[in-house]
Formats: sequence, C-alpha cells, structure tokens
Amino acid sequence: MDKPSDTNNATRRRFLAGAAGLAAAGATGARAENAKNLPPNVAGWTRQLGDGVGVRAYGNPSKYEKDVVRRTVPWLTATPESSVSFTPLHQLDGIITPNGLCFERHHGGVAEIGPGDYRLMVHGLVDKPLIFTLDDLKRLPRVNRIYFLECAANSGMEWRGAQLNGCQYTHGMVHCVQYTGVSLKLLLEQAGLKPNAKWIMAEGGDAAAMNRSIPMSKALDDCIIAYRMNGEMLRPEQGYPARLVVPGWEGNVWIKWLRRLKVGDQPWFTREETAKYTDLLENGKARQFTFVMDAKSVITAPSPQAPVKQKGFNIVTGLAWSGRGKVKRVDVSLDGGRNWRAARIDGPILDKACVRFYYEFEWKGEELLLQSRVMDETGYVQPSKDALRKIRGVNSIYHNNGIQTWALRADGEVENVEVG
Amino acid sequence: MDKPSDTNNATRRRFLAGAAGLAAAGATGARAENAKNLPPNVAGWTRQLGDGVGVRAYGNPSKYEKDVVRRTVPWLTATPESSVSFTPLHQLDGIITPNGLCFERHHGGVAEIGPGDYRLMVHGLVDKPLIFTLDDLKRLPRVNRIYFLECAANSGMEWRGAQLNGCQYTHGMVHCVQYTGVSLKLLLEQAGLKPNAKWIMAEGGDAAAMNRSIPMSKALDDCIIAYRMNGEMLRPEQGYPARLVVPGWEGNVWIKWLRRLKVGDQPWFTREETAKYTDLLENGKARQFTFVMDAKSVITAPSPQAPVKQKGFNIVTGLAWSGRGKVKRVDVSLDGGRNWRAARIDGPILDKACVRFYYEFEWKGEELLLQSRVMDETGYVQPSKDALRKIRGVNSIYHNNGIQTWALRADGEVENVEVG
Repeated sequence: MDKPSDTNNATRRRFLAGAAGLAAAGATGARAENAKNLPPNVAGWTRQLGDGVGVRAYGNPSKYEKDVVRRTVPWLTATPESSVSFTPLHQLDGIITPNGLCFERHHGGVAEIGPGDYRLMVHGLVDKPLIFTLDDLKRLPRVNRIYFLECAANSGMEWRGAQLNGCQYTHGMVHCVQYTGVSLKLLLEQAGLKPNAKWIMAEGGDAAAMNRSIPMSKALDDCIIAYRMNGEMLRPEQGYPARLVVPGWEGNVWIKWLRRLKVGDQPWFTREETAKYTDLLENGKARQFTFVMDAKSVITAPSPQAPVKQKGFNIVTGLAWSGRGKVKRVDVSLDGGRNWRAARIDGPILDKACVRFYYEFEWKGEELLLQSRVMDETGYVQPSKDALRKIRGVNSIYHNNGIQTWALRADGEVENVEVG
Repeated sequence: MDKPSDTNNATRRRFLAGAAGLAAAGATGARAENAKNLPPNVAGWTRQLGDGVGVRAYGNPSKYEKDVVRRTVPWLTATPESSVSFTPLHQLDGIITPNGLCFERHHGGVAEIGPGDYRLMVHGLVDKPLIFTLDDLKRLPRVNRIYFLECAANSGMEWRGAQLNGCQYTHGMVHCVQYTGVSLKLLLEQAGLKPNAKWIMAEGGDAAAMNRSIPMSKALDDCIIAYRMNGEMLRPEQGYPARLVVPGWEGNVWIKWLRRLKVGDQPWFTREETAKYTDLLENGKARQFTFVMDAKSVITAPSPQAPVKQKGFNIVTGLAWSGRGKVKRVDVSLDGGRNWRAARIDGPILDKACVRFYYEFEWKGEELLLQSRVMDETGYVQPSKDALRKIRGVNSIYHNNGIQTWALRADGEVENVEVG
C-alpha cells in the first residue's frame, strides 16, 4: 500500500496546516513579499524558498560533499571484479559507516540476485537438509547487532614498511554498521546437527563461489545470516540479499550472496584458506585459520589525506576495534610511541564494534609522530609493527594490526612513515 | 589528495594479487572457461562475473528495493516547501535510520548553504559575541551520540481517532542516527554567559528563519551543534551544514541550517511557540514549551503497509523511545490491551535513542488487536490514547504518544483502528 486512505481530507489538511506554520497558500506570497523587504545583507538561502519535500524519495549527500567517496587503486589488482574499494575513513566521524561508503571487496564482481530467486541451502551432516527463501529467513526470530567488519588484508601492504599514503588506503577495509538477521545457531538447530558436526562451509552465489570453513563453536556462538544493514536491506555489493556475519573474524569468512551452508566433520581446505588467507611465516610454515581480527586502531585525522590546516588547538581522532570483545582504552602518542596519553572514547562501546576516540592538543608547528594504540577487554595491547614482524616476518599480507605512524610535518602535511 | 603515491607498484601489485585470489589476469579467462563447464542448474549470477569495484563511488540500494522510500501526503499541506516526508518505518528494522530515509519536515524548503559560506553567530547576553565558520566548529572538541528525533506532530492526526492507514504516516516522523558535533555548552562558555542569561533563541538560515526559545538548563545539558549524521556530513534536508540537536525534545527545536544563537533572560515567544507547537486543551488554555517527547512505541510490522503473509509463526516488531532517558521495557498485546506480554529488546539500549523490540507468536488466522506499550527508566508508562484525551482533549495536533492499535484481519490485512 503506497498511499494512506484519503477520506476526511478536510480534517487532515487542517492538521498540518496547523503544524506547518502556514495558515494558507497565501502565506507563501506574503513571505515572498517579506523577502523583498529584507535588508541586502540577508543571505540568498533565506530570501527564497528552498526545495520542497518529495524530491528526494531516497536522499543523497550534499553536492558539496561529492569528494566523500570510496576510492580504488586500479594498479593493485588485475581486474576490477576481483578488487577492493576503500572507505574514506579520513572524511568520516562517529562509529556508524553510511551504507554507501562501506568498503567493497569482491572476488568475482557483484552478483545480482533477485529477492524472489534467492535460496539458502543447509545440508551435510544434518538430520534434515533445508532450503530457505528470503521470506523464510525474514519470518524467523531476528537479532540486531552493531559490528565492525575488517578484511584480513587491511593494512596488508604495511608489513614491508610504510607504503600507501592515506588511511583510506592503509586502513579503509573496515566498516561498522548495524546488522539485522537470523542467528546461524537457529538455522543449524532447525536442520539438526549430527554428533560429528564440527565445521561448516559457507559458500557464496557470486561468480567466485567464495567458500570458507568455519568451526562449529563459532557457528553456534554469535554468527548471523544478515539481510539488513543500518535498517535497510543489504546493499548489492555487501551480499544482497543475505550474507554471513561472523563477528570479530576476518571479512573473507563473512560470505556474501550466501547460497549454502554445508555441515561437516573437518574443514574443507578451500583455496581461500590454503593458497590465500593464510599467513606465511619466516620459517616457511603458514598460520592457518587465523580468523580473529586482533585489536587495532588508526588515527583517521590528521592523516595524509586530512592534513592539519592551522596551528593551535587541534584534534586527533580515530577508530579502534577488537575481534575479541570490547575496547577498553585507547592511547595516543605524539612522539612516535615514547610517551602515551589516554584518548577520550566518545559514544557507545559495544562488543566487536568500532569505537571513536579523540585526543585534543595544541600544535605549535613542530614535527610530530602520531600514533594510536588500543587495549581490549582481554588485556591485549595493539603491538608495534616491528614487534609483529619479529614474530610473523614480512611474507604475509594478512592480519597486520600494528601501530600506524603518521608524521605531521611543519607545513601541516602528513605522511605515512615507519618508526624504529 | 585523491590517490596514494604509486611508487613501487610491483610490490603493491603483488600484495592484492595475493589477496585477490587471482594470481594473474589469465585467471579471469580460466574462470570464464569454467563457467561454461558448470551444470545447467547453476544460477546466472554464479556463471558470470558481476560488476567490479569503482562503479559505485557512493553506493545506492539494490534496484529491487526501489519502493523503500520516504513518502509524502500531498493534500496535507498547501505547499511542498512547508510539508513533511515520512520515514518508511514498516520497511526498516534495527534502530539506525539510513540517512537517505530520515523523515523531512520543512517550513520553507531546503536551504542550500555552501560550507564555506556558513556562519553561526552567538550573541545577546554574552561577554563576547562570536561568529563561527564551519571549520571553526570542526576544530572544537566533538561528541558522538545516537539519538532519536521526533516531530511534535508525529501521530498528531490520531488525536481525533484512527486516521492514516500505515505506520509510515502515523509514526514516520521519527528517526534515529548518530550525530557528531560540538557541545552547545562549550560554545556558550566560549562566549561567556551574563548572570541573567536564562534562555537561548536558536534560529535557522532557511526561508522560514525558523526560531525557537530553549531554556538555558537544557542548553547547558546535552545539546549539540551537529554537522554529521551517521558518520558523514549532514544531509541537506537535515540542515547541512549544521543543526541543533536537542536530545529527547520535539523536533521543531532542533533548528536546521542553524545561523544564530541569541542568549536572553526570557523566552522570545516566537510564532512557532505561540500560534504553533502549543497544545490547546479543552478548557481553552494551551500548554506551552512542552518540549519533552514522552515515551512512545509503535509496532512497525505487522502494520497496514506490512500485512501478514501467512499463518503460523510470525513476528511483531517495532520501535520504542523516550525523551526522558532509556527505555526500560516494552510490552505487546494481541487483544487490544487486555493482556500484555514482555517483548524482547534486541540491540543496544541507549539514552534517548530508539530501541528495537520483537515479540514472536503463532497466528492461527484469528482477528487480533496489536498494541505495544513502552516503559522508560523513570517508570513512566505509555498511556492509551483515551487516557491522553481525557487530560488533553482533542484540540491539539502535538504530543500524541498514545498506544497505537492495529487490527489484524483474518485475511492478513492490517488496519489502523481505535479501541475503547
């Protein structure tokens, strides 16, 4: 139903004629007349009526904000269908990422699936294999959770030293939204797990048929089959109409365009958990199934894309998150990690969600080395990049949660640098 | 800076060539070849590559969701510049409203103000009148808060009985987003308040020059000059580049396109707080400065625009909020208020923010009278419409927070009805 019933129009018209502050159509004319009598220093936007309602059924940002966009790095990958667009972290604040700016990471482009055509199969070591339509999923009990989502390769280039010059590129494969969907545990319980059910394999309906193994303990914990983000249906590039949400774990296992969940007694060792998404160490061995995204933070401004405009009072701000639970505190250093001061976390602190931190300081024009460091509720402290390299080497492109350093130069410009 | 520096491409290319799961361009050809060999029952979206990244610098909803839009009721007001567009509550879930769907209420259309032209003046009973640019505001310490915003006239037509047939129209003048901005208290302290400073007047830069008086106690409490919503800059129709946020209070005082704050020793008795936005009682007297939005809830589905599709397991879901603090609990009735059962609140419970509630039930096809009732942390319980009418009469169009009733018919259709 697209329109309210419109009987009794007179009563209703009276309703908003009151609320509107316009007693009748004639008032518009009176206002135009008033505008002519306004002194010449009154701004144009006050002198005349602006756009009315109904011209923005689904609204968009101001035309003055058209540089606030996801950006790509064309030379990073061979094809745009298997690449990434980065969230402009330096142009945002708060913890909620607007849906239109959530980073994308595709392996076979964006699958276009009509909601009526969508099916999700649950099979394998279950008592009763099931197929769900989207309507079926929507009829099941729902959960709502705000979670960060980070690609395992976020900051991956930084293993070998300061590389990309901007937090959009170094850290822009993270976003944070509210998901609505069905508990994965509920679906598995509906199918009935066999005694030897130890792993699930989640597979996407995209051209990559992206698939990953997930241990049953996580599947029965907090995973969600999500069909909404920030209230509305998933965006196409985020897996419309349904994706897997695996809170705190690497983005690659949050399978988009989810088409099946197979239950088994061991992992499948798919391509994306053997040749890819494993962490090759110095000794030639690889860490595998390193799902959890360890605590991490980044200063989003000042940063290379967000230089400092003037001396005096300035604000360091950024995001922090942990795949192991809640953020406990964030510290900021202005001198490359020699001295640390507590940052102020402002806004909600939620389990496995981003927090926003601020640190206010006076800048006299001296060169500074800006860093942030997060501690989560488990007591884990974000390490330096060098501390990580000592343990993991520099062969991997994944799971780099090391402390990021921005050099603030005397002219206000900011650079991505390494500190000893 | 729009692009990262691109020295050392080879290293970087190696980076995502690994992450991508595509070793070389040739892999695309191999995959296309594989697609030909797929069995015929594999869906089209899996057989071929989808859109790559970079085609959605700022993303939009799926083409399948094009009916999820703000809607207007053209006959409600004389002009579209002084009217309202309603949030499609029945098509959303969770608590965060996407910016593109936040309801609009304008009195002179949408003012178009360039960020460089924007000025905010603080004057009146202050030691030092101040003028802030947008950059000035952005340099000041920031706060982030998730708040609901409700128009005082939301549900206003319901005073005289069930009217509009859909919660988008009866309750769609509420939304909930995260705001980022400057504490109003900080601005006032910077200007320095005179001893007799008791009220402020906030005025907009739109053609209506909308202005309202706000008591100093609230101004010094939790008000924000916000320039961001859900991370990105305010949308034009929400007051770009800056608006007043007055948590828990009626939307009309959340002045958009905010151009000045005047400090005085008494209210200004502007048009919008005398002829409008006052509550005319039965005895001819009017309640004035009734700022707080009392606790309220609404079932968003099932509802007239979201009928029930089938018998059996179904979900009642909705939103609840209180201008006096946190929501404590929500109850649901299926029989018009005779029996109440506790709903499940899922997701964060934040001060002066919406909460999402669910109540699952088996529907056998019988007619039901669906209601929700919220209690906030002060112990206040949402009243019935009749209880409100006994005290306030039916002259007002404002502050109707009465319990809403939806009649679920045997065919699954839902109607807006009155119960005794």
